[in-house]
Amino acid sequence: MTRPPDSPGVGRRLGVDVGGTKCLGVVADDTDSVIAEFRRPTPRGLGSTAAVLNAVEDIVREAIETVGPVDSVGVGVPGLVSRAGVLRAAPNLDGIADLDVAGMLSDRLARSVIVDNDATCALVAEWSIGSGHGIDDLVLVTLGTGIGGGLVLGGDVRRGANGFAGEFGHMMVDPDGLPCPCGRRGCWERYASGSALGLFADEGGFAGGPEVLAAARSGDTAAVEIVDRFSSWVAVGLAGLANAVDPEVIVIGGGLVRDANVFFPGVERHFMTALYSADRRSLPELRLATLGERAGAIGAAMLGAAHGR
Amino acid sequence: MTRPPDSPGVGRRLGVDVGGTKCLGVVADDTDSVIAEFRRPTPRGLGSTAAVLNAVEDIVREAIETVGPVDSVGVGVPGLVSRAGVLRAAPNLDGIADLDVAGMLSDRLARSVIVDNDATCALVAEWSIGSGHGIDDLVLVTLGTGIGGGLVLGGDVRRGANGFAGEFGHMMVDPDGLPCPCGRRGCWERYASGSALGLFADEGGFAGGPEVLAAARSGDTAAVEIVDRFSSWVAVGLAGLANAVDPEVIVIGGGLVRDANVFFPGVERHFMTALYSADRRSLPELRLATLGERAGAIGAAMLGAAHGR
Repeated sequence: MTRPPDSPGVGRRLGVDVGGTKCLGVVADDTDSVIAEFRRPTPRGLGSTAAVLNAVEDIVREAIETVGPVDSVGVGVPGLVSRAGVLRAAPNLDGIADLDVAGMLSDRLARSVIVDNDATCALVAEWSIGSGHGIDDLVLVTLGTGIGGGLVLGGDVRRGANGFAGEFGHMMVDPDGLPCPCGRRGCWERYASGSALGLFADEGGFAGGPEVLAAARSGDTAAVEIVDRFSSWVAVGLAGLANAVDPEVIVIGGGLVRDANVFFPGVERHFMTALYSADRRSLPELRLATLGERAGAIGAAMLGAAHGR
Repeated sequence: MTRPPDSPGVGRRLGVDVGGTKCLGVVADDTDSVIAEFRRPTPRGLGSTAAVLNAVEDIVREAIETVGPVDSVGVGVPGLVSRAGVLRAAPNLDGIADLDVAGMLSDRLARSVIVDNDATCALVAEWSIGSGHGIDDLVLVTLGTGIGGGLVLGGDVRRGANGFAGEFGHMMVDPDGLPCPCGRRGCWERYASGSALGLFADEGGFAGGPEVLAAARSGDTAAVEIVDRFSSWVAVGLAGLANAVDPEVIVIGGGLVRDANVFFPGVERHFMTALYSADRRSLPELRLATLGERAGAIGAAMLGAAHGR
């Protein structure tokens, strides 16, 4: 299908990524290049359900006022999202549950809005135009406030029976371990997310993740040890995923990638010892995501464009 | 393609499953019904590499002598099998490594022999004609001496980039935990396999897995507690897999299925508490395998018939 090039909004797609701290919107053109960006803080606390929807609506309206009409709107949200776009559970979003995000945003904006899991959006973006480009068997793991992710196997995104695949952060790595806000114990994201690094840092006398990373960067022995412990936990989960699905590439994304130079060499080293029969197999390649904080929004725009006209 | 019904061997396919204790061969007809069965103990100890190949060769020759020619031969072996049929590592088979099983058996038998991972064979069988029939998003977990498995996602078997997917037994559920023959610690199969149940039983004063299962069946409190602990470890790994790939069905196979009436209710109960957001999602259904100990051999026959003419 071709359209005249001067039609308003032709090929422009809007994507919004609802994160734990901010909502980021991008308008991309039909080559998936970002031509404009918009952001709002993610509202927290009482009444946050309506406030989060308001923030997304504001971004959509501001984007259209600024760049003109868009062909499609896609939104990524952190949590279990049904195939119909209902947010079933979002522990990192004040526990929002059973919210028909797709239906409510479609009503408010009087247009079709596609809603998907935020990590699935990031997977689609990194797989299509990022560091997983062209890989048929790919795992994306996002290290941020929590841990999310997604799978490409046999050349297509695998969302599972209900669209809930990729909840890697809640795979248990120590069932008698640290309590998780999800109600279980020993979930991987309690040991290998940004929140976990912050906890390890606090226990070691540092004021949070950024401080321990800075200290490790300048060679502080205690900080290096804490970061190494964190890296080994990251590797435990990555190796488990590699044992389970044998990806060609594992892409590490999420906010922690900014500090990858500090912790990533340790992850690569520990991965070799955590992976089953590492010395006798082709090894999955560990890569860093290349789309940065925009991955989720770009992927949301792509999914919106694919399904949401 | 049709062939005259009286052609020798038409539609008959031979499959051999090399297990930790026995090698089981089946001849199936073109509807995958088993028409004959052959077995040998799996040789262990010094010189076992050649002895294992001898055992498989013996079964193939005996089968052909007994039922007449077969169209194809498939063999399932426990360990990492490359797409070319090389057994890269087999910790539960005396550590056989880098053995070109497909090439060596093809030479010995002067015909094409297809070799694949034993759990992949079982997956193909249970998915095609067993309790996973018709399921597009399916996980098979085999509980035996170790833990193996495989994945069907999006309606096809997903073997990963190198064919090594499904090594669920070596996902770590406690990185500081029990040592594993694979060289790591805390692998799931140290807690949730037949070997693990045997260890728990010994620790509790019972003489191995069968005795503790029998005692639990007759209501012995200590035995019930041991089996419950075992069941909870099985559930931890199943929940991790469900979090990762969101299957519609998880099929539990392997030798332990014979005693499922003792431990499976506990697995189902613990699975509900181990699964992320179990109360807010469609739950994967846990099913028992239906093909019993023949699953691997039947699947090997199927894979041989599909690829091995």
